[in-house]
Amino acid sequence: MSARRQPIEYGEASSEVRAVYDDIMATRKTDWVNNFWKVLAHDPPTLERIWANVKQVMGPGALDSLTKELLYLAVSASNGCPYCIASHGAAARRNGMTEAQYSELLAIVGLANETNCLATAFGVPIDPQFL
Amino acid sequence: MSARRQPIEYGEASSEVRAVYDDIMATRKTDWVNNFWKVLAHDPPTLERIWANVKQVMGPGALDSLTKELLYLAVSASNGCPYCIASHGAAARRNGMTEAQYSELLAIVGLANETNCLATAFGVPIDPQFL
Amino acid sequence: MSARRQPIEYGEASSEVRAVYDDIMATRKTDWVNNFWKVLAHDPPTLERIWANVKQVMGPGALDSLTKELLYLAVSASNGCPYCIASHGAAARRNGMTEAQYSELLAIVGLANETNCLATAFGVPIDPQFL
Amino acid sequence: MSARRQPIEYGEASSEVRAVYDDIMATRKTDWVNNFWKVLAHDPPTLERIWANVKQVMGPGALDSLTKELLYLAVSASNGCPYCIASHGAAARRNGMTEAQYSELLAIVGLANETNCLATAFGVPIDPQFL
Amino acid sequence: MSARRQPIEYGEASSEVRAVYDDIMATRKTDWVNNFWKVLAHDPPTLERIWANVKQVMGPGALDSLTKELLYLAVSASNGCPYCIASHGAAARRNGMTEAQYSELLAIVGLANETNCLATAFGVPIDPQFL
Amino acid sequence: MSARRQPIEYGEASSEVRAVYDDIMATRKTDWVNNFWKVLAHDPPTLERIWANVKQVMGPGALDSLTKELLYLAVSASNGCPYCIASHGAAARRNGMTEAQYSELLAIVGLANETNCLATAFGVPIDPQFL
Repeated sequence: MSARRQPIEYGEASSEVRAVYDDIMATRKTDWVNNFWKVLAHDPPTLERIWANVKQVMGPGALDSLTKELLYLAVSASNGCPYCIASHGAAARRNGMTEAQYSELLAIVGLANETNCLATAFGVPIDPQFL
Repeated sequence: MSARRQPIEYGEASSEVRAVYDDIMATRKTDWVNNFWKVLAHDPPTLERIWANVKQVMGPGALDSLTKELLYLAVSASNGCPYCIASHGAAARRNGMTEAQYSELLAIVGLANETNCLATAFGVPIDPQFL
Repeated sequence: MSARRQPIEYGEASSEVRAVYDDIMATRKTDWVNNFWKVLAHDPPTLERIWANVKQVMGPGALDSLTKELLYLAVSASNGCPYCIASHGAAARRNGMTEAQYSELLAIVGLANETNCLATAFGVPIDPQFL
Repeated sequence: MSARRQPIEYGEASSEVRAVYDDIMATRKTDWVNNFWKVLAHDPPTLERIWANVKQVMGPGALDSLTKELLYLAVSASNGCPYCIASHGAAARRNGMTEAQYSELLAIVGLANETNCLATAFGVPIDPQFL
Repeated sequence: MSARRQPIEYGEASSEVRAVYDDIMATRKTDWVNNFWKVLAHDPPTLERIWANVKQVMGPGALDSLTKELLYLAVSASNGCPYCIASHGAAARRNGMTEAQYSELLAIVGLANETNCLATAFGVPIDPQFL
Repeated sequence: MSARRQPIEYGEASSEVRAVYDDIMATRKTDWVNNFWKVLAHDPPTLERIWANVKQVMGPGALDSLTKELLYLAVSASNGCPYCIASHGAAARRNGMTEAQYSELLAIVGLANETNCLATAFGVPIDPQFL
């Protein structure tokens, strides 16, 4: 038994798992489910829980859909998660992200990592104007 | 001599450093400079370099100013840099970020850290649709 | 000369390195040594030092062997180290970890990364009850 | 308005927020709520969502309560989140963690950070036995 | 359009991009440009900006070239960036790093990750002698 | 009992702990021990083990003492560990680090964090010349 879990396809999934897959496809108006969910499907309570979280957090709210996907993509790029960069990059493009916007997003992510590091390393005191 | 460098105030700064402070205030239309720059001022070439980077990256482009500040804030929150959360939180608010938007931003940052971690830990294979 | 060091097999190892390999196999009651040690073997003092650390820390103590391996695996999953997830996942299974336990472990690791991020980003003040 | 949100006490909370506080206290059999939840309370949907996650993940399952708290504490220590170390350290002690166990836990966390770093830096190839 | 950008070769690059490639080769006295720059070339302002930063920071100064490359390599190894370990490992070797020095560097990186983690987890108070 | 352990002073330490304190002072030719060790002293086997590691790794070898301390400091700054920045910053200064060198070190650390992030986010393919 390996540490790496194989994706569970729709045809081999339990009805409990299929219900989540169906909700993912209906919510996203797509006809397929990406591997992240198919891997989580080895543990149905986690699959249901994480999907409920994503559905709530990424659903309609005070920020528009594109901005939400840009934020998710920026954090994923900062954390260096190749899978999440690929999946949320695709989602951001579906929501209208242009290549020029992606370039600027990555420039911000890179620069923030530099200045976050410097501010923390120096222990810069927070200005009273920011409190 | 301590590892922590004290902020250098305008009145005690060299003309080289004052020129950067002046450009920061002119660019931002403010009458003060925050501590991050005053700490970097111990090393004028770095002060000039980092400011030139921030000015270019955060200036007008394909993403609007609010979105840029939201992205910077999201990465800073994800990295847990208290100074940058405070300074870019203030900048985002100046650019119109509401409390409801800040709440959603943090919800995305928290959730992305969870799913980035899971996707990496599982080594989820990237779907061909994302390539 | 590449930055990536090739594993040094038992047959090509010095007697100094073989002595560590022998102790690893005797301690673990296995007849093979995994690549982590074979890569460290390019630097015998580091090989000996790291093995001595692992042997001491993971040996008998106040926590049972399974709990120790679960903790090692959880930190490795949180840090996103594929090699360590694979090797300590195997070790945890040898010590009795079930697939259901592994699922719960990963759920905790993912959730902790979310709440750690939120607590740090918010700068939540530590309750006096916890001090 | 500061980036740092103040804890919302029970007496000043909405009924929606109080319902979560009540469930936290009932589930944990305590008569107080810690600051993490009081800070999340500025955003009730997130408060409810994160609490539902913690309740599900940390509830009865394949791992016993002490092991779950040890894992949460280990990840929090690895991530360097002072608030979570304090809160989950307290929870682990309530579940029976001894000082000797805490010492061993931290030794594992520290060592895992060293070996995770080395395995990743070296790009150690995963042994076929682990696949 | 994929999230992963393909390297842009000299022959297909714009004159703006070629000017940066030419400066990289002239500065480094080499006849080729590595993929990092060829990928950044999709966004010429970022290519120019990052190169200007690297040229300034890694140029002659108070630290000699080998020490600078060792520091870059150590941070890259600590962050687990395979590309940067490979490229700065090669640069350090060109500047004279021996295999024995590389072994010691990695031993320091690994140990620092362990003790950084322990110091942060314990919240060790900074000694007045260090302030 | 708090998660934060108080430093154990020489006068209240066991003979086992005092032996380590004595060796630290003799090795470093100082007449005091810093808090990191006094906090580890709650767990004597870990105190002895970590000190043995530091003594071996930071002792004479292929890299000179100043370079070793610069590397330790750079990794600590990159990881944002305030205690380790303070303690290894002091050690580096004792070994001759100038303020100009410290400025350059931090510039490298900041820039490496930016480019490590970009290289990982882009998944830049490693050039065959580096393999």
